[in-house]
Amino acid sequence: MEEITVKTKEHLEVLDITSKVESGIKGFRDGLLMVYIPHTTAAVTIQEPDEELWKDLLDTYRELVPIRGDYAHNKKYSGMSGEQNAHAHILSGIIKPFILVPVENGQLSLGNWQSILFIELDGPRNRKVRLKFIPSK
Amino acid sequence: MEEITVKTKEHLEVLDITSKVESGIKGFRDGLLMVYIPHTTAAVTIQEPDEELWKDLLDTYRELVPIRGDYAHNKKYSGMSGEQNAHAHILSGIIKPFILVPVENGQLSLGNWQSILFIELDGPRNRKVRLKFIPSK
Amino acid sequence: MEEITVKTKEHLEVLDITSKVESGIKGFRDGLLMVYIPHTTAAVTIQEPDEELWKDLLDTYRELVPIRGDYAHNKKYSGMSGEQNAHAHILSGIIKPFILVPVENGQLSLGNWQSILFIELDGPRNRKVRLKFIPSK
Repeated sequence: MEEITVKTKEHLEVLDITSKVESGIKGFRDGLLMVYIPHTTAAVTIQEPDEELWKDLLDTYRELVPIRGDYAHNKKYSGMSGEQNAHAHILSGIIKPFILVPVENGQLSLGNWQSILFIELDGPRNRKVRLKFIPSK
Repeated sequence: MEEITVKTKEHLEVLDITSKVESGIKGFRDGLLMVYIPHTTAAVTIQEPDEELWKDLLDTYRELVPIRGDYAHNKKYSGMSGEQNAHAHILSGIIKPFILVPVENGQLSLGNWQSILFIELDGPRNRKVRLKFIPSK
Repeated sequence: MEEITVKTKEHLEVLDITSKVESGIKGFRDGLLMVYIPHTTAAVTIQEPDEELWKDLLDTYRELVPIRGDYAHNKKYSGMSGEQNAHAHILSGIIKPFILVPVENGQLSLGNWQSILFIELDGPRNRKVRLKFIPSK
């Protein structure tokens, strides 16, 4: 299993990791690529490489699951400044920490406007992204 | 990789594509079927074939991510009438453009009430749905 | 395909099924494990084994998709007390009834804080969880 690293700089942030993922698939011809995030306060999705849209994504996440909500998780860890992150856990559980993309002829079979987006929900942090290949034959 | 086409008629719409997907799996015995949507303003999920429920799904999507929100993406493309669709991108990024279903004995191993639903979020459009099979042996 | 059972006790409930899933993977070395829920009013995700967080997850689900909303599905089945569950269908369609996790050296390759959580959205019920293995070689 390949592992790539991502360094985030903001509390909530979107990073396009498509080219990092593509550089990890060399030699693999046909099947599925799984992009797996081994973290509980980040996620991964497939969307357009458009920075204005990324702002809209994060604004929507903040509106649906407010950072400063009345969370039991945050109260439990009220003495730990780094653990006021229930919003990040909740969003990661909805958006999910994995995607799969078909691979054909050694290429990710993404649609024209699709890119692979790492979603930081409790940064800045150093993050890991695992790549797992499953052949179709 | 098989590709099927879907023609949507509404701005937001749910279409049951189970039988189209089933007709694409002939000859495939055991493994996983991936249903992959190569678009960024549509999604796919697994739910009941109940038209009243589909109305509820779409009403909830509209309430959580309003079509006429204050979106940076929509402002950037304010001159392009077809690009006022940040809501569709955001929802597609949450609901996701892929599902996987187990296949056993040449059949989709769906639960009794499960069907495969194409979710149009910015129609009407002609859409593609890709089917990728991964054998378990 | 392995099948395990889960008995839920509450209307909305989170259950950690990681050890049940792990006990189902013996003999399987390397690939992907799919955890598939053949129900339309439950879901599965990956998150921390923290009961306070689970309360926050369920509170957020209830806030985003209220149990007592004005749902067409619930009106259609207004005479059936067990079918007032549109909220559960909608949430299941967003959170999804499947996850995949990499397997390496006969072990689930979960991150340090990740566990596999069954999400009951319309309990209490007896539920099934299917496990499907796809080898990487």
